[in-house]
Amino acid sequence: MVNIVYIATSLDGFIADKNNELDWLHEVPNPDGSDFGFSAFMQRIDALVMGRKTFDKVAGFDCAWPYPKPVFVLSNSMTTVPQGYEDKVFLVHGELKKVVAELNDKGYNELYIDGGVTVQNFLKEDLIDEMIITTIPTILGGGIPLFGELNQPLKFKHVGSERLVDVMVKNRYVRCRNGW
Amino acid sequence: MVNIVYIATSLDGFIADKNNELDWLHEVPNPDGSDFGFSAFMQRIDALVMGRKTFDKVAGFDCAWPYPKPVFVLSNSMTTVPQGYEDKVFLVHGELKKVVAELNDKGYNELYIDGGVTVQNFLKEDLIDEMIITTIPTILGGGIPLFGELNQPLKFKHVGSERLVDVMVKNRYVRCRNGW
Repeated sequence: MVNIVYIATSLDGFIADKNNELDWLHEVPNPDGSDFGFSAFMQRIDALVMGRKTFDKVAGFDCAWPYPKPVFVLSNSMTTVPQGYEDKVFLVHGELKKVVAELNDKGYNELYIDGGVTVQNFLKEDLIDEMIITTIPTILGGGIPLFGELNQPLKFKHVGSERLVDVMVKNRYVRCRNGW
Repeated sequence: MVNIVYIATSLDGFIADKNNELDWLHEVPNPDGSDFGFSAFMQRIDALVMGRKTFDKVAGFDCAWPYPKPVFVLSNSMTTVPQGYEDKVFLVHGELKKVVAELNDKGYNELYIDGGVTVQNFLKEDLIDEMIITTIPTILGGGIPLFGELNQPLKFKHVGSERLVDVMVKNRYVRCRNGW
């Protein structure tokens, strides 16, 4: 049972720019059209958990739905899944620990936790086991940060780096709950 | 002529914790007493440039003065170098571009730019050419950030990673002024 963050940030730790836009993510030249390991990561996971805002953002992208695995959307206000997503998206709500336990009970053990607010909420409850962070080496100078306030520090451990198209770096960290 | 940042940050980008302390930097086990490349980096540079606050902090550490190269302290208020530092520390002030040009004229071409405020001021004027950032994989959840506001994004490029004591990662980035 592992909850994994897989996300790209700017060099200064933002997941969206000052205008809540993501264009800067796609500015890196990618002549071979690599997915930078995304589909391999998708093979690994059993399901995604994201917030309502992230769902709305992805649903609004001008491209096909990118997730071949079930997407559980955390929302206290949505009561029905938007048309067209009935076989892709499922609503969940309530305490995160309970949501995760219920998904684990159903056999969804490797969970991809997505979206800034959701990641921050999971971290607040120490529910993140692994983080795969691709750094786009742009200093944005402002935007929506990946990380937020925590009452106490959380220790992770670096387990690997991969350079992508000679520009970006993907670093992988795992949670160390008993110190390093 | 290169201005280089060489610094450690938490996984969430802080250079000091919520109490302006650095203890968390030294929590990583280091059984062989490695300096993680610091003295090799010191060999490479010609001089350091830091702010008054960083100078005070380092001067207050309970250890020998760690810099074998001249340290130029940016200060508009200090008029004399504190006793004991006369052969180590030199005061500079004024416009950063001018300060750098004057140091370059004197043969100080590889400059180590240190301290949060100074790094942010150098970045605001696009005066940083290289950044060597060691990530201590602790999420602090608050503190003094390395990066600050910028009027426009700055693109860097990842050039290398090094894992340290199986816990941390040192990533190196160089400035790309004409795009990637």
